[in-house]
Amino acid sequence: MKIRLYNAKIMASPSENIFDGEIHIDGERIVYVGTTRNDFMADREIDCRKNLLMSGLCNAHTHAAMSLFRGIADDLPLEAWLYDKIFPLEEFLTPDDVYWGTMLQIAEFVRNGITCFADMYFYPDAVYAAARNAGLCLALCCGLSSENSRDALKEIEKYFNKYSTISRRVRYFPGLHAEYTSEESLITAVSDFAAETGAQTYIHLSETLKEVGDCTVRHNGLTPPQYLYKLGFFDNGGLAAHCVYTDKEDLALLKQCGVVPVINGGSNLKLASGIAPVYSMLYSDMSPAIGTDGTASNNASSMFREMYLFSCLQKHAMKDAAAVPAESALLAATENGYRALGFEGGSLRKGNFADIVLIDLHSPNMYPHSDHKKSLVFSADNSNVLMTICGGNVVYDQGEYHIGESPETIYRKSEECLRKLQKKAATE
Amino acid sequence: MKIRLYNAKIMASPSENIFDGEIHIDGERIVYVGTTRNDFMADREIDCRKNLLMSGLCNAHTHAAMSLFRGIADDLPLEAWLYDKIFPLEEFLTPDDVYWGTMLQIAEFVRNGITCFADMYFYPDAVYAAARNAGLCLALCCGLSSENSRDALKEIEKYFNKYSTISRRVRYFPGLHAEYTSEESLITAVSDFAAETGAQTYIHLSETLKEVGDCTVRHNGLTPPQYLYKLGFFDNGGLAAHCVYTDKEDLALLKQCGVVPVINGGSNLKLASGIAPVYSMLYSDMSPAIGTDGTASNNASSMFREMYLFSCLQKHAMKDAAAVPAESALLAATENGYRALGFEGGSLRKGNFADIVLIDLHSPNMYPHSDHKKSLVFSADNSNVLMTICGGNVVYDQGEYHIGESPETIYRKSEECLRKLQKKAATE
Repeated sequence: MKIRLYNAKIMASPSENIFDGEIHIDGERIVYVGTTRNDFMADREIDCRKNLLMSGLCNAHTHAAMSLFRGIADDLPLEAWLYDKIFPLEEFLTPDDVYWGTMLQIAEFVRNGITCFADMYFYPDAVYAAARNAGLCLALCCGLSSENSRDALKEIEKYFNKYSTISRRVRYFPGLHAEYTSEESLITAVSDFAAETGAQTYIHLSETLKEVGDCTVRHNGLTPPQYLYKLGFFDNGGLAAHCVYTDKEDLALLKQCGVVPVINGGSNLKLASGIAPVYSMLYSDMSPAIGTDGTASNNASSMFREMYLFSCLQKHAMKDAAAVPAESALLAATENGYRALGFEGGSLRKGNFADIVLIDLHSPNMYPHSDHKKSLVFSADNSNVLMTICGGNVVYDQGEYHIGESPETIYRKSEECLRKLQKKAATE
Repeated sequence: MKIRLYNAKIMASPSENIFDGEIHIDGERIVYVGTTRNDFMADREIDCRKNLLMSGLCNAHTHAAMSLFRGIADDLPLEAWLYDKIFPLEEFLTPDDVYWGTMLQIAEFVRNGITCFADMYFYPDAVYAAARNAGLCLALCCGLSSENSRDALKEIEKYFNKYSTISRRVRYFPGLHAEYTSEESLITAVSDFAAETGAQTYIHLSETLKEVGDCTVRHNGLTPPQYLYKLGFFDNGGLAAHCVYTDKEDLALLKQCGVVPVINGGSNLKLASGIAPVYSMLYSDMSPAIGTDGTASNNASSMFREMYLFSCLQKHAMKDAAAVPAESALLAATENGYRALGFEGGSLRKGNFADIVLIDLHSPNMYPHSDHKKSLVFSADNSNVLMTICGGNVVYDQGEYHIGESPETIYRKSEECLRKLQKKAATE
């Protein structure tokens, strides 16, 4: 399928000027980005009516199927949230639940301009089936813990082999839930696997002050990054979600290893975990990505809200209204995420995947047209997303979804899955 | 015009259970809220398709026409923002600029479910003309300072007399820009006027730490609330915007005077001003309202984002994920605001103004349907607003605006006004 997107404003990258022009897509790739021309024989021509084309957004940390748990455990302390509300339901999860929960999340993703996501959850085959339906780029992130590690290494090997070759739009990251849920032997085993295969790793890192404190007590004063480094977990780089309580030494270590922090401002705010030192990361020339975390804790998968928080929480924390400008948030939500996850996208370039969002500039919240980049971060929200294209397919178009399942089916199934899990947990 | 809104879920108040039913409107008022019945002869019947009806949102602090300045001065320190970017343009503002700036803001308001606003800016007649076009409830808040107070008291009297009688949907609050921009004689004069007329007052209060510190130095250790109290400014109550740096004694004083704090979380975050002590206000049985502040500083007029921040910034500040639950944010954004401004609305009750929003529940970010109130605050955004009704008139309906001017005209005029102001400021 050849698509021509014309009569558009184009932000090829947040670090470049926006210009008037058009984009051509052939199959799953972008084949042209530039000024107007008339020599492309397209199967479909889309008049962008002077709205803005930008890269699809990369949600670099989430637990997609937790969408099923949205709204069941809000305004609660972290421990009550996790132990009383979430874990009892997760115990009964089936691949079917994960499939429908992921589909619900993917509907929200494409509604909100998200074309790429890193998912840490159960049943990777079910997650992949859902992502393939809609054609999103998917990083499957293994979240082993000592509780769920039976036969784990065999599973990691199986999934790594399968998902390292199946498509350029899926990758597999061996990894751990977190330091505090992993015995040393497990960390070493995953590190060894990464060393053998050259794989990058993925983990929740230094999300709460308690996590860091407990780690230093257990491990002779070593913080989670220092301890994991010692065990070789970061030898090939990878991604670390949260990084709220990382100090200068931690950041230097992560940078040295090529580990990309994934910032989850909304989740950290709502669970009262803290504010990650994004300003320091940028100052150290690191390139943090952005995640929404799961919707049981956030509760929206809105990269617009996350970009806003990425910038404005730093202004607050640093007491400096000039800290972390809009352009840094746009980079984190696009190029930084795609690069960290290893997908060929995050900017509108010839050869990249055609992961593209069309942003409505003709809405009151985008006027006057003084600075589109500032408006994207400080003023836009999901109401400005007109169209989302994943790997060359139009998956969302002004209220219409083309993601393999109808929204009505997804909504009904998500309700059924949740009620079933709640019933099972209640009769346990 | 009689309108029947049927097949709906109804949140009459955030403190009550949501139920299935319908609402009848006659003229500008609600005449029925309850279960289904078939005896109302409506001119228009609207099938809500099991979506949610709730009160229109009250934006209790803004500077509407500053929408013209959106995106011209972001990622800058507060002083540079104000003195280098905003003031030089405001110097040349005409009533026509204020009219079109306010119209742009009103388009955004109704797009986002806002049906009532408190505006502190120049040229009240131009603001009223814009608000009347769309039928929003309008509180005109005088923002005198010693710089712009020539003939001020005559003007206050004129506007107070005019706007206290013209309509039940408009009110006038005599007031001051802030303590730090007012000489004592001016504060006393406005206080005297309030005493004579029984009027409530309006002011920016304790927005920054510098403002509070400077005030205590100037006035023998008195904070802004204490100093204004001493001069009788709060004798009839009123509203105070921001209240970021208010301590226990300040809050006790404001409560005693019946002054309602208006929280502007987004603006305070972006300008690095701080986080208002909402948790303490609620704990002291105060009923804070919510404002977006002007879009030159926020930059969106999204009460959804403000509700989210109202709750989540407190969770962060108090290090308690249970602090300030969703229901408190919903109350602040509806009933508290309407009550503070003195308009008969903020809840869906017989006799109240028909200021109503229809929220799309059939969107991925609202599923599963576990708890609509939590989803409204933590997950919803402006993309969930299907329809906005102001005083019995449908002013926004899925992309269609009925606000007296076409969006295209508003967009064009807002661009023209801004360019004209920039040209004048440049040739000055």
